Amino acid sequence: MSNFQDLRRQAGRLITDPLVPLISRLRLTPDIMTTIGLVVNLVAAVVIGFGHLLWGGLIFLLAGLFDLLDGALARYMQKTTRFGALFDSTVDRVTEGALFLSFIFITGVGAWPYNVTFQLVLIFLALIGSFLTSYIRARAEGLNIDCTVGLFTRVERVIILALGLLLSQVFIALAIVVVLSFVTVGQRFVHVWRQARK
Amino acid sequence: MSNFQDLRRQAGRLITDPLVPLISRLRLTPDIMTTIGLVVNLVAAVVIGFGHLLWGGLIFLLAGLFDLLDGALARYMQKTTRFGALFDSTVDRVTEGALFLSFIFITGVGAWPYNVTFQLVLIFLALIGSFLTSYIRARAEGLNIDCTVGLFTRVERVIILALGLLLSQVFIALAIVVVLSFVTVGQRFVHVWRQARK
Repeated sequence: MSNFQDLRRQAGRLITDPLVPLISRLRLTPDIMTTIGLVVNLVAAVVIGFGHLLWGGLIFLLAGLFDLLDGALARYMQKTTRFGALFDSTVDRVTEGALFLSFIFITGVGAWPYNVTFQLVLIFLALIGSFLTSYIRARAEGLNIDCTVGLFTRVERVIILALGLLLSQVFIALAIVVVLSFVTVGQRFVHVWRQARK
Repeated sequence: MSNFQDLRRQAGRLITDPLVPLISRLRLTPDIMTTIGLVVNLVAAVVIGFGHLLWGGLIFLLAGLFDLLDGALARYMQKTTRFGALFDSTVDRVTEGALFLSFIFITGVGAWPYNVTFQLVLIFLALIGSFLTSYIRARAEGLNIDCTVGLFTRVERVIILALGLLLSQVFIALAIVVVLSFVTVGQRFVHVWRQARK
């Protein structure tokens, strides 16, 4: 642990320490804090996508506060769970994906043909879905939860994308990747939730 | 392990089983196979980016063969290492990122102002860098390697992106995120390499 990381941790505590006892009295659980953080982050992404950068930035900072508080609250309540850790990490990745997706719309993409925007969103969602599928498994294994379940892993992605390329139907392939990736993310998420309760 | 996954594994072995002894005689190691797969995948991405979908698809399938072979070779040679596993997984994510990035260019983005293409690439690289930073840590922890090193974690990303939004300098913030994320990915990769040798 470097001095820099110590400093970062101390700065985080300066913000969370006074708030955590208050939140704990409101009977909010860490997982509820994570969920509120997710919703606030998604609102920030929508606001940014509509071009309101200042407001979006402020809402994004507010969401960041919830990101800090869920872990701090879990430690304060001595309620750190494996599911909570995976839920928190997965939500972090989802919100990052949503934020970067919202940035597409501030490049001025609205001025181009409608189908181009749609194609760009499809590429983005396929990347996010593919990464999430692999991430949730790696994160689960880090928490000692086996997570090989799921219909649509890398091999299937490669086959669908290769077919899409060979048949010049890349965006149909991407649509399939998006749907099946997010189904698999859901499967793995439910699997971890069940395993972590044991 | 479902029947579907069994079937998938058996189909994979049908391809790899005859090839693996030959490759092992060529004195190629699993990590070299992973590296060749990375290079072939990057070539596929460039070819696809230039709009040659059929050729790109064929090269992409060839790269997929190397992806199958590295793990099979490691098992055959009984040389499965923790570093090899992380290297393989990380390369899979990098090549997926490169492939999806190449798809941006087949939406017809070349016809738009130059700076728009540049901004889209920046958003894409920032997403890939952010995901990789988190992925490499999660994957390392799944292999029982502690991996909290790295200057630029989620907290720093949030601060830089929030500043970018508040000051209406999103693309400067993204450029910083890209550079520092990939530096952190490098730091973590070297860290795992050192730890895995112990």
